[in-house]
Amino acid sequence: MTDLGIIAAISILTAGLTVSFGAIGPALGEGRAASQALSAIAQQPDAASTLSRTLFVSLAMIESTAIYCFVVAMILIFANPFWNAAVEAAAAAGG
Amino acid sequence: MTDLGIIAAISILTAGLTVSFGAIGPALGEGRAASQALSAIAQQPDAASTLSRTLFVSLAMIESTAIYCFVVAMILIFANPFWNAAVEAAAAAGG
Amino acid sequence: MTDLGIIAAISILTAGLTVSFGAIGPALGEGRAASQALSAIAQQPDAASTLSRTLFVSLAMIESTAIYCFVVAMILIFANPFWNAAVEAAAAAGG
Amino acid sequence: MTDLGIIAAISILTAGLTVSFGAIGPALGEGRAASQALSAIAQQPDAASTLSRTLFVSLAMIESTAIYCFVVAMILIFANPFWNAAVEAAAAAGG
Amino acid sequence: MTDLGIIAAISILTAGLTVSFGAIGPALGEGRAASQALSAIAQQPDAASTLSRTLFVSLAMIESTAIYCFVVAMILIFANPFWNAAVEAAAAAGG
Amino acid sequence: MTDLGIIAAISILTAGLTVSFGAIGPALGEGRAASQALSAIAQQPDAASTLSRTLFVSLAMIESTAIYCFVVAMILIFANPFWNAAVEAAAAAGG
Amino acid sequence: MTDLGIIAAISILTAGLTVSFGAIGPALGEGRAASQALSAIAQQPDAASTLSRTLFVSLAMIESTAIYCFVVAMILIFANPFWNAAVEAAAAAGG
Amino acid sequence: MTDLGIIAAISILTAGLTVSFGAIGPALGEGRAASQALSAIAQQPDAASTLSRTLFVSLAMIESTAIYCFVVAMILIFANPFWNAAVEAAAAAGG
Amino acid sequence: MTDLGIIAAISILTAGLTVSFGAIGPALGEGRAASQALSAIAQQPDAASTLSRTLFVSLAMIESTAIYCFVVAMILIFANPFWNAAVEAAAAAGG
Amino acid sequence: MTDLGIIAAISILTAGLTVSFGAIGPALGEGRAASQALSAIAQQPDAASTLSRTLFVSLAMIESTAIYCFVVAMILIFANPFWNAAVEAAAAAGG
Amino acid sequence: MTDLGIIAAISILTAGLTVSFGAIGPALGEGRAASQALSAIAQQPDAASTLSRTLFVSLAMIESTAIYCFVVAMILIFANPFWNAAVEAAAAAGG
Amino acid sequence: MTDLGIIAAISILTAGLTVSFGAIGPALGEGRAASQALSAIAQQPDAASTLSRTLFVSLAMIESTAIYCFVVAMILIFANPFWNAAVEAAAAAGG
Amino acid sequence: MTDLGIIAAISILTAGLTVSFGAIGPALGEGRAASQALSAIAQQPDAASTLSRTLFVSLAMIESTAIYCFVVAMILIFANPFWNAAVEAAAAAGG
Amino acid sequence: MTDLGIIAAISILTAGLTVSFGAIGPALGEGRAASQALSAIAQQPDAASTLSRTLFVSLAMIESTAIYCFVVAMILIFANPFWNAAVEAAAAAGG
Repeated sequence: MTDLGIIAAISILTAGLTVSFGAIGPALGEGRAASQALSAIAQQPDAASTLSRTLFVSLAMIESTAIYCFVVAMILIFANPFWNAAVEAAAAAGG
Repeated sequence: MTDLGIIAAISILTAGLTVSFGAIGPALGEGRAASQALSAIAQQPDAASTLSRTLFVSLAMIESTAIYCFVVAMILIFANPFWNAAVEAAAAAGG
Repeated sequence: MTDLGIIAAISILTAGLTVSFGAIGPALGEGRAASQALSAIAQQPDAASTLSRTLFVSLAMIESTAIYCFVVAMILIFANPFWNAAVEAAAAAGG
Repeated sequence: MTDLGIIAAISILTAGLTVSFGAIGPALGEGRAASQALSAIAQQPDAASTLSRTLFVSLAMIESTAIYCFVVAMILIFANPFWNAAVEAAAAAGG
Repeated sequence: MTDLGIIAAISILTAGLTVSFGAIGPALGEGRAASQALSAIAQQPDAASTLSRTLFVSLAMIESTAIYCFVVAMILIFANPFWNAAVEAAAAAGG
Repeated sequence: MTDLGIIAAISILTAGLTVSFGAIGPALGEGRAASQALSAIAQQPDAASTLSRTLFVSLAMIESTAIYCFVVAMILIFANPFWNAAVEAAAAAGG
Repeated sequence: MTDLGIIAAISILTAGLTVSFGAIGPALGEGRAASQALSAIAQQPDAASTLSRTLFVSLAMIESTAIYCFVVAMILIFANPFWNAAVEAAAAAGG
Repeated sequence: MTDLGIIAAISILTAGLTVSFGAIGPALGEGRAASQALSAIAQQPDAASTLSRTLFVSLAMIESTAIYCFVVAMILIFANPFWNAAVEAAAAAGG
Repeated sequence: MTDLGIIAAISILTAGLTVSFGAIGPALGEGRAASQALSAIAQQPDAASTLSRTLFVSLAMIESTAIYCFVVAMILIFANPFWNAAVEAAAAAGG
Repeated sequence: MTDLGIIAAISILTAGLTVSFGAIGPALGEGRAASQALSAIAQQPDAASTLSRTLFVSLAMIESTAIYCFVVAMILIFANPFWNAAVEAAAAAGG
Repeated sequence: MTDLGIIAAISILTAGLTVSFGAIGPALGEGRAASQALSAIAQQPDAASTLSRTLFVSLAMIESTAIYCFVVAMILIFANPFWNAAVEAAAAAGG
Repeated sequence: MTDLGIIAAISILTAGLTVSFGAIGPALGEGRAASQALSAIAQQPDAASTLSRTLFVSLAMIESTAIYCFVVAMILIFANPFWNAAVEAAAAAGG
Repeated sequence: MTDLGIIAAISILTAGLTVSFGAIGPALGEGRAASQALSAIAQQPDAASTLSRTLFVSLAMIESTAIYCFVVAMILIFANPFWNAAVEAAAAAGG
Repeated sequence: MTDLGIIAAISILTAGLTVSFGAIGPALGEGRAASQALSAIAQQPDAASTLSRTLFVSLAMIESTAIYCFVVAMILIFANPFWNAAVEAAAAAGG
């Protein structure tokens, strides 16, 4: 099992775990915020626009943690500096 | 056990785990939001359209984290750059 | 233990885990949404049609995460690109 | 330990885990929906038929995730493509 | 340790786990539904027959997931295709 | 470590785990149902007979999942087909 | 490490785990039922005899799952068919 | 590492785990029952004697599961049939 | 690593785990009972003596499960029959 | 790795785990009892002395389980009979 | 497996885990804060501006812990001092 | 890996785990007691001095379990009898 | 695998885990405090300044535990005394 | 892998785990206390100074457990007696 194989395997595994574990918290948090927003609108329909605005800012804030995870997963798959270094090293060794 | 075998095995395992763990959070979060929306509509039927709109925006937001996971799983199965590199390397070694 | 055997074993294991773990979240989320819908209909029978429609849209949304898992499991069993590549490689080696 | 043995062992283990883990979520979700339906009927007996219909549609929806798991388990036991391929390969090797 | 021994051991272990894990969800779900039914009958004795009927349909629905597990366990013990194939293979090898 | 020893060890372990894990769910579910029945009788003493009957049917239903586990454990200890096959095989080998 | 040693070790371990894990569910379930019975008697002292009778039937029902576990543990310690077979086999081998 | 050593080690470990895990459920269940009894006496001081009697019967019932565990642990330490058999076997081998 | 070392190590580890795990349940259960007793006294100061008596009987009952664990731990440290047997055996072997 | 080293390592590890796991239950239980006592005093300031006395008896009772753990940990560090025996044995072997 | 490979693999794995586990807490905490803010605005629309300001300061505070994690992950991927040292060492060794 | 190294490693690991796990319970318990004290003072400001005194006694009681853990950790780092014995043994061996 | 490689790998892994696990508690705690602050301001707008001040002091206090973790992670990455010692030792060995 | 390397690795790992696990409990406990303080101030603004004082004493008490962990982590990194002894031993061996 070469270094290249290990790095590829770990990158794949980590990318998947990162994005899937990173989805649990935001999904639950957004579900809670959204559920309360609906309850609040039903209770105070006149404030619906203020509530929607606050909800969307909050959802964006929460979503940002999921996006951090997605970004890291994408970096690990498509722009992984360790993989590039390992590929270059393998090319140099085989050159 | 060759590098190709390891990468294939890890990709399969990760794709499955990613999509299945990634379904837990969104499903629970959407269940919560939808359940509150129903309760809110029952309480304030006149605001049903506002509530539906807010619900659908929220569901889309939550669903997005499940879709990140699905996208990563699909990339790992059908457009895996590590697998492609390993296949090319194996072809070069056997060429 | 050949590469073919490993890929087959991992594919079987992953397909099963994917579909079974992927069933937990949606089942609980749908149970919550349905339970609240019933409570809402009992509270506001006049809005039953609006509530049913909202419930079915929500159930479809939640079910979609279970379907992602089912799709990935089916792909792993019947249209697994890694297995096809390994079978071809084994055939080429034995040809 | 041959490839055939590994695939058989993994298939057995996965079939059992799939169907047993896949039973937890739906059973809990259906228990919740049914429990709320009973409470709703007691509260609003006049809407019993609407409530029953909504309950049965919801139970069918939730049950579907358990059925996905059962289907995958049955496929793994009785129509496993990896097992068939391995049996053919073993027959070819021994032929 | 022969293939026969492995398959037998895994089948025994899986059968037990399947039926015991598969009992947790349905037992809890049925307990919840039954408990709510009792509460509903106490609250609305006139609707006892409707409630009983709904309860029994729901219990049957929930029990079905436990029965899936029991069926899979029985198949693994008494009609296991992998065991049969392995026994035949052993008989052929020793014939 | 012979095949006989492995099968015996796994059978013992599985029988114990099956019956002990299989006791958790039903015990909790029955506790919940019984507790609600007592509360319901206290609230509506006139419906005690209807409540008792519903309770006993529900308890029997829930107990059935524990009995599945007990049956499987007893089969594994006293009527284990894999053990019988292994004993016969050992007798044949030593005959 | 002989087969006898393995079977003895597994039997001891399983007997202990069976009876200890099997005690958790019934103890919690009985605690819940008893606690509700006390609350119900305080609320409706006139129905104390009906409540006591229902409580004792329920406790017996719940206790039965603990007794299954105790029986299996006792069988594993004092009437273990696998141990007897192994002792006979060892005696025959040494005879 | 001889068979005697293994059996002794497993017996010690199992005795401890049995009694400690077996203490968790009963302690929590008794705590719940006792706590509710105190609340019930405060609410209905006239029924204190009935409540006390019901409480003590329930505590005895719950305590019984802890006693099963204690009995099994004591049997494993002081009257372990597997240990006795192993000691006799060792004595016979060394006699 | 001699048998004596193994038995000593397992005895130490088990004694510690037994007493620490065995402390969790009783401590929580006693906390619950005591907390409810304080609430009950505040609610019904006239019944303080009855409540105190019931509380102390209950605490003693719950504490008994912690004492079982402590007794087993002390037996394992200071009166361990397996250790004594192993020491005698070692003395006999070295005598 | 000598027996002395193993016994020392296990004793250290067990002492730490015993005292730290043994602190969780009592701390939570005491927190619950104390919190309820404060609430009770606020509700019924006239009974403050009775409440304080009951609280302190209860805290002492709960603390006792933490003290069992601390005692066992101290015995394992400073008066460990297995360590003493092993040291003597090592001295005798080296004497 | 060289030191370079180990450091790369661990860095990749840690970066992913850090950012994904680090997303769970903040997402849940922000979801809770946002949900309460919406409820508060619905209850007291006049204080919406104070509430929004407090919410945004709190969200920023909570988000900061997610950002710590993101920063550490980015450092591990793009500015890892251990990797730089290892690369230099490898270059020196090969120079 | 010498005995000295093992004892040092285990002591370090245990000291850290002891103090960190030992902090969870007391911190949560103190949080609960303090939170209830604040609520009680707000409800009954006249009893603030009694409440404060009871709170501080309770906090000291709960803190004691954290201090047990800290003491054990400090003993393991700075006054470890096993380490001292091992250092002396190593010195004697090298003397 | 050299000592340098091990220390680098452990440092990376620990830094990541420290900062990510250390983010869970503070984020949840701050979320709870902030959520209650918003509720309190909505209930008592006149005390908004006192509430804000108390909130910010509390958030700073809670944030401090996250900062401890961040500081330890930064020390492990950029000022690790063990790494420095190991680098010096390696330089000395190679000097 | 030398003793020095092991001790360094364990110290790093333990320091990180200690401070991160040690942050969870205090952060949650402080969050609870602070949240209740805010609620109490909103309910009883006149007692704000008493409440603030009690809150700060409580926070300091809870923070102390986090500080124990931080102190142990700092000792393990910068004043580790085992590391010092190992360094001296290594210097002596190489001297």
